[in-house]
Amino acid sequence: MYNLTMLDANGDPEFMTSLARGLAVLCCFADEQRPMTIAQASRLTGLSRPATRRCLHTFVRLGYVAQAGANYTLRPKVMALGYAYLSSSTLAMRAQPLLDQLRDELHESCSLGVSEEDEVYYVARAEVSRIMSISLRVGSRLPLYCTSMGRVLLSGQSKESQRTYLRRTKLVALTPHTQIEPGNLLALFDHVANEGYAIVDQELEIGLRSIAVPVEGPDGIVAAVNIGVQAARITMAELRSRYLPPLRKIAAELRVLVANARP
Amino acid sequence: MYNLTMLDANGDPEFMTSLARGLAVLCCFADEQRPMTIAQASRLTGLSRPATRRCLHTFVRLGYVAQAGANYTLRPKVMALGYAYLSSSTLAMRAQPLLDQLRDELHESCSLGVSEEDEVYYVARAEVSRIMSISLRVGSRLPLYCTSMGRVLLSGQSKESQRTYLRRTKLVALTPHTQIEPGNLLALFDHVANEGYAIVDQELEIGLRSIAVPVEGPDGIVAAVNIGVQAARITMAELRSRYLPPLRKIAAELRVLVANARP
Repeated sequence: MYNLTMLDANGDPEFMTSLARGLAVLCCFADEQRPMTIAQASRLTGLSRPATRRCLHTFVRLGYVAQAGANYTLRPKVMALGYAYLSSSTLAMRAQPLLDQLRDELHESCSLGVSEEDEVYYVARAEVSRIMSISLRVGSRLPLYCTSMGRVLLSGQSKESQRTYLRRTKLVALTPHTQIEPGNLLALFDHVANEGYAIVDQELEIGLRSIAVPVEGPDGIVAAVNIGVQAARITMAELRSRYLPPLRKIAAELRVLVANARP
Repeated sequence: MYNLTMLDANGDPEFMTSLARGLAVLCCFADEQRPMTIAQASRLTGLSRPATRRCLHTFVRLGYVAQAGANYTLRPKVMALGYAYLSSSTLAMRAQPLLDQLRDELHESCSLGVSEEDEVYYVARAEVSRIMSISLRVGSRLPLYCTSMGRVLLSGQSKESQRTYLRRTKLVALTPHTQIEPGNLLALFDHVANEGYAIVDQELEIGLRSIAVPVEGPDGIVAAVNIGVQAARITMAELRSRYLPPLRKIAAELRVLVANARP
C-alpha cells in the first residue's frame, strides 16, 4: 500500500499528481511479481479504478506495459528507466568492474549500496554462481537496521538522525537473532563507526552472514560495500580475517573515484 | 530528441500527457549521463522549459531526482522502476542463475535479450571481469540489424515484418564490416533461421564478435542468448565449435522454463 499523501499536490501548484500516480502504478508491479488487473493495481495503489485504468492505458500506449485481456504486465522498456539512473551514476558505473574483480578473487558475491528513504539500495553487484544463491540484484532494497551495509550507512549519521530513523521505522525481528531494541541498535551503530566495519550474523535471514565497510566521500559516508556468505561455509572469524582486508582495499579505491568524480 | 507525437494525446481522452512527459524527462538523463539543467532537459525532450521544470519539481518531491542549485541528477530510487520489470519477469529472473553458470564454465560474458521497439533489450547478463571489458549491462539497448541477438530475434519474424523493420530503420555502417544493404540483410536473416544461430563479426564494433541462439516459446522466438568475445582472443571457428553447443543447451533449458512459466 502506498503513502497516498505522497500522491497529493497538497496545495503545490507545480506538483504533477498524474505523474506521481503513474509511477505508483508502475511500482506496484514489483510488489506483486505477476500480471495484474485494474482492480488489483487499484487496491495496491489506493487509487480509484478509473484513475488506475488511465495510468495503465497510457503505459500501454507508451510501450511500458503489455495488455492481454484483463491482465497487464510490464514490458522490458521499463528497465530503460532504471538504466537511466545506472548510466548517469558515476559511482555505480565505476564500482562494477571493481566488484567483478573482488568476486573473482574471493569467489563470493559482493555489492555496493546507498541509503535512500530508510533503505539500502543495491546499485552495483557482482554475483557468484551457486546452487544456493542469494537472490539480490541491482535495484534490490533492504532495511537499514538489520543489514551490514545499512548499519555502516547509519553509522555515519548523527546520533539525532539515528534516533529519528529508529523512531519512524518499524523494527521487525526477521529472525530470532535480529536486534530490534533501539538502545542496543544505537550502541551497535557506535561500535560500527569506531571499528569501521559492520558484521551481521543471521539477523536478516537464517544462514546468511555479511560484512560491510563504508565508502567515504568528501562530506561523509556515501555508500557501503559488502560481501554476503552462507553461515554454513564461513565462520565469523573468517569473515573478519579473510574478507575485511580486501573490502577495505576496494573501499579505498572507490573513495578515490568518488573524490575525482565529475560533480 | 524524443518523438514528440508520442507525448501527445492525439485526441485520446484516456491518455495522460503529463505522465508521458515525465517519463520522457526521466529517460533523457540516460542519454546525457551527467547532471542536467532545466534548459538542457527541455532541449533534449522538446518540452517547454515550464513543462520540464514541473516534471523535475515533481520528481524531486517524489525522491526520484536530486537538485543542487541549477543541476538535477537522478537518485537511486529510479532503479526501483527498472527493478519492477525484472522482478515481475519470470524469464529474466530464471535466466540469471543459468547465465551465471555459463559464464563460470566458459569464462566469457553472456546475456539474454528480447526485442522491443526495434531494439535488443538486455534483460539478464552475467559478466566476466577483464581489463578490456564490454560495457553492456541489464537495461542496455542495441540495434537489431547488426547484433547477433538482434538477427536471431528478427529471424523468427515473417518476411513482411523483416522488410517493414528494414524500411523504418536507419541502417548505419557502425564499422567497415557492418552489413547495411537490405537485400543482403534479408538473406542473412534467412540463413540465421535455417542454421538456428547468428554470428556477428565486428559489425557492431571493431574487435567484438558474438554468437547468439534463439529461446523458443509456444508461439515462436521469445528471446535470444548470446556470448560476446574479443576478436583478438577467439576465432570465428572457435566461436562456433566451443560456444555454440553450450549456448544451445542453455536455450533448451530456458525453453522448458518459458513453457512452464505462470502466464
